[in-house]
Amino acid sequence: MTFRARHLLGIEHLAPEEIRAVLDLAETYVELNQRTVKHSDALEGMTQINMFFENSTRTQASFELAGKRLGADVMNMSVAHSSVKKGETLIDTALTLNAMHPDLLVVRHPASGAVDLLAQKVNCAVLNAGDGRHEHPTQALLDALTIRRAKGRIQRLTVAICGDIAHSRVARSNLILLGKMENRIRLIGPPTLMPSGVQDLGCEVYEDMREGLKDCDVVMMLRLQKERMDGGFIPSEREYYHRYGLDAEKLAMAKDDAIVMHPGPMNRGVEIDGELADDINRSVIQDQVEMGVAVRMACMDLLARNLRAERGARAVGVMV
Amino acid sequence: MTFRARHLLGIEHLAPEEIRAVLDLAETYVELNQRTVKHSDALEGMTQINMFFENSTRTQASFELAGKRLGADVMNMSVAHSSVKKGETLIDTALTLNAMHPDLLVVRHPASGAVDLLAQKVNCAVLNAGDGRHEHPTQALLDALTIRRAKGRIQRLTVAICGDIAHSRVARSNLILLGKMENRIRLIGPPTLMPSGVQDLGCEVYEDMREGLKDCDVVMMLRLQKERMDGGFIPSEREYYHRYGLDAEKLAMAKDDAIVMHPGPMNRGVEIDGELADDINRSVIQDQVEMGVAVRMACMDLLARNLRAERGARAVGVMV
Amino acid sequence: MTFRARHLLGIEHLAPEEIRAVLDLAETYVELNQRTVKHSDALEGMTQINMFFENSTRTQASFELAGKRLGADVMNMSVAHSSVKKGETLIDTALTLNAMHPDLLVVRHPASGAVDLLAQKVNCAVLNAGDGRHEHPTQALLDALTIRRAKGRIQRLTVAICGDIAHSRVARSNLILLGKMENRIRLIGPPTLMPSGVQDLGCEVYEDMREGLKDCDVVMMLRLQKERMDGGFIPSEREYYHRYGLDAEKLAMAKDDAIVMHPGPMNRGVEIDGELADDINRSVIQDQVEMGVAVRMACMDLLARNLRAERGARAVGVMV
Repeated sequence: MTFRARHLLGIEHLAPEEIRAVLDLAETYVELNQRTVKHSDALEGMTQINMFFENSTRTQASFELAGKRLGADVMNMSVAHSSVKKGETLIDTALTLNAMHPDLLVVRHPASGAVDLLAQKVNCAVLNAGDGRHEHPTQALLDALTIRRAKGRIQRLTVAICGDIAHSRVARSNLILLGKMENRIRLIGPPTLMPSGVQDLGCEVYEDMREGLKDCDVVMMLRLQKERMDGGFIPSEREYYHRYGLDAEKLAMAKDDAIVMHPGPMNRGVEIDGELADDINRSVIQDQVEMGVAVRMACMDLLARNLRAERGARAVGVMV
Repeated sequence: MTFRARHLLGIEHLAPEEIRAVLDLAETYVELNQRTVKHSDALEGMTQINMFFENSTRTQASFELAGKRLGADVMNMSVAHSSVKKGETLIDTALTLNAMHPDLLVVRHPASGAVDLLAQKVNCAVLNAGDGRHEHPTQALLDALTIRRAKGRIQRLTVAICGDIAHSRVARSNLILLGKMENRIRLIGPPTLMPSGVQDLGCEVYEDMREGLKDCDVVMMLRLQKERMDGGFIPSEREYYHRYGLDAEKLAMAKDDAIVMHPGPMNRGVEIDGELADDINRSVIQDQVEMGVAVRMACMDLLARNLRAERGARAVGVMV
Repeated sequence: MTFRARHLLGIEHLAPEEIRAVLDLAETYVELNQRTVKHSDALEGMTQINMFFENSTRTQASFELAGKRLGADVMNMSVAHSSVKKGETLIDTALTLNAMHPDLLVVRHPASGAVDLLAQKVNCAVLNAGDGRHEHPTQALLDALTIRRAKGRIQRLTVAICGDIAHSRVARSNLILLGKMENRIRLIGPPTLMPSGVQDLGCEVYEDMREGLKDCDVVMMLRLQKERMDGGFIPSEREYYHRYGLDAEKLAMAKDDAIVMHPGPMNRGVEIDGELADDINRSVIQDQVEMGVAVRMACMDLLARNLRAERGARAVGVMV
C-alpha cells in the first residue's frame, strides 16, 4: 500500500486506507528514531529540497532530520527572506529547482493553493508543509498517530479543536482527517474566529469552552495566529486566556483520561496554562513533535516508492 | 585529461582541450542526475566549503547539490550578512577556513580579483563562483555544454550576447570561452552598457538589436544588473524592453533554429518576453540550470583528481 | 578512558586524566583531517544539532565539520535571529528538539548557565559551545592541545592571559584548565577589565604588560569584547593598543621561544599587531583553528561512547 497520487498536497486527497498505511509505516520509524544508529536507506541517493517561503524552524527541522535519516541529500532553500514575489516568480523558482533534478520537494508557502500550483509544474514529488489557510497534511497525520498511540484507536473519538479555527490550516487538515476516520468533532472558539460556513462542516460548534469540552477524549489547542488576523476582532490576550485558554479547571470537563495537544510553538498563558502543557499525564505535546519526524519519514518513503515504480515502469516502457 | 592548474579561477586560464574535457565529463553527470540514485564517490570523504560573500540562491544551491551528489561533506558559510570587511579580513576568514582542511573552496565575492587573491593563501582547490565584474567560469562552461547539446558543436557558431555587457562577469567569461573555441561573437546593447575598449575585444558590436540578431545561432540574454550601475545612464525598464528585450518578433531575425539563453534569475518583461522564455522549442533556460549541476560536478571531480595526484606525489616524495 | 559525565558543560567538571584523554584522542583526528579522505564512523547514524543562540561563524563551522567527518547527520538551527525569548522559551525549544531524538546537542547561548539548565531537560549529550561569561570548554581544550604540540607538555609552563579577562569565557575556561594541569598563570590587563575577586584566583595579576610577559612560555591574547562592556571604562582602541596590544617589542620580554595565541576573530591593530599574528615562527593562531576541529571530534566521540554504553546497559537491564 502506498499513496495513490505522486504528491502529498492535502488530507483531502487521501483515502482512509492511505492514512492507515502512513501511520503503520510511521510506527516503524518511531522505533528507528529511538535507536542510536537511526538510519534507513529508503531515500539513498535521492535529493530532497526544503523550500520554505514562510519561516518555520520546527517544521523545517523535522523534515530535514527525516530526510537525512532516510539517507537523502537534503538541501534547505532559505526563500523566506529573499525577494521572491508571488505568482510568476514562485513558478520560476520552482522550475529552476526542478531542473536540478530533486526527487522530493517540501514546500511551505503563505498563499493557499500555491503548493498545488507548484506541484503541477515539476517532475518530482511535492510535499505540502503548509500553504496559507489551506492544508498542512503532515501535521494532521502526526496528530493522528499521536492520538492512535494514546487512545489505541483513531476512530469513534470525541475531539475538540479549540481557538482560532478560521485562520488555521492545522485545524482544517485535522478536521478533514478526523472526519474521514469517523470521529465526532467539536469546534470551540469565539464566533469571530470561526470560519464562514462553519455550520456546513458537519461539526458541533461551541462558543462556551466548558460546554464544548464535556466528555471529550482529545483536546486540541491551536496557536493564536495573531499575524493572520486582518480586520477581525482581536481579543486581548488576558481576556482570551480567561475564556479560551486551557487550564486544569476547564480540562476537568473532559473525560478523565482526555489528552491535551498543541501543534506548537505554544503561547504559554495565552492558549494554554504552562503547567498543564508540561504535565506528562495529560499533555502529549512532546509526543506530537516525536511523531512528526516519524510521520514525515513515512510520507517521504511512500512517495519515493511511487517515484521508483513510476520511473521503473517508464524505463521498461522505453525498452519495449 | 584534467585541469592544469590547482584552481578554477577563470576561463582565461583554460586551454580548449581542458574545456572539452570538462564538457565530456559533465555529460556523464547529466546522465547520473537523471537517475533516482544520483550518487558518485568522486569526492568521498572530502570537505567542500561554500563561501558566498554575495547572495546567490541558485548558484550556491547548484554547487551544494553537486558536492553532495559526489559524496563530499558540504558546508555553507553565510558570510554575506556577517560583518566581514574587505581586504585583510577576507584573508583572515580564508586562512581560518583553510586551517580546517577543506579540499574544495567555492567562493563568490563582490570584488573583482578577490577570489584569485584568496587562492594564493590556501592549500586547497578554489573554484570561482563569480567575482565582481571579472569571471564566472562555471557559468560559461554550463552555457557551453548547453550550446553543444543543442547545436551539436561549440565551434563556428554565431553567438549574440545582449544587454548589460559592461557589468557582467557572465558576459566576460562567455566571451573568453566562445572566443577560444573559435565562434563569431556579437555584442548587442546600448553604448552606455558596453565596456570601455569594446572595439579591441575582436567582437562585432551592435546598438540595433534586430541588426545584431541577424542569422545568429545562439541568443544569450543577460540579466539587467541595476544594482551595479553606478552613475551610468539607466534606461527605464519599459524603454529598455522596447529596444533590447527579446521577443518573438526580434528573435525572428535570428536563424530559424536559434536557441535562447538566460543565466537567470530573469526579469520577465524587461530583458525577455515571459512567453518566449517558457517556449521549450526555442528557450534552453531550464537546460542551463540542469547543465549547471553537471558541469560543477565535473569541475570539482577534475580538481579533486589533481589534489589526489599532488598529495600522492608529495607522500611518495616524503617516503624516499 | 572517556568522560565521567554525560555532557561537556565546562572544564570545571573535568579531571586531569579526562583532559589528557581528549588531547590524546584529538591527536588521531589531527592526523585524519590532514588526509584526503577524512572520515570516521564514530558518530555513524547519530544526529547532531547545533543550536546557536548567539552567532559564531567559526565555532559553528568547526563543530559542523567535526560532526560530518565523524559520519553524523548534522543540523544547524539558526536561533540567533528568531524571536526566541529567554528562560521558559529556551526550555520549550530544547524540549522540542529533544523530542526529535538528537544524540548530541551543541549549544551556544548569551546567558551564563543557560547551557547547564538546558542539559537538565534533555536525554542526549550536550556540549557547551560558550555560555555568557561562564565557560567555553572546547576552546580551552583546543588551546591546551595547541600548547602541548608546540611546547611538548601542558604542565609547568608560565602562561600569560592578556586583555579583557572580565568578560571572557575563553579566559575563564583556560584559567581552570591550566590551573588543573599545574601551570603558572598570569593575568594581564587594566583593572577595569579584571574580574572582581581576581586576587582569589591563585594567579599573578599585572597591570603592566611588559612586566607580566617577562619569561612567559605562552602568551594568550583575548578578543576585546566591546559589545559586552556595559557601563565600565572603555579605553580608546589606540590607547588600548599602546598599552595592551601585543607587538614584537612587548613580546621580546617573554621567553625567546614563547608562542602567541588568539582565539579569533582578531581585531588586528587593537589586541595584536597584524604582522606578529602572521609570523609562523611565533604565532600558533592557525594551529588553534586546526586543533579546534580535532578536539571537537574527540569530545563528540567520547560522549558518543558514553551514550552507547549507557543505552546498552539500559537495554540489557530491560532484558533481565
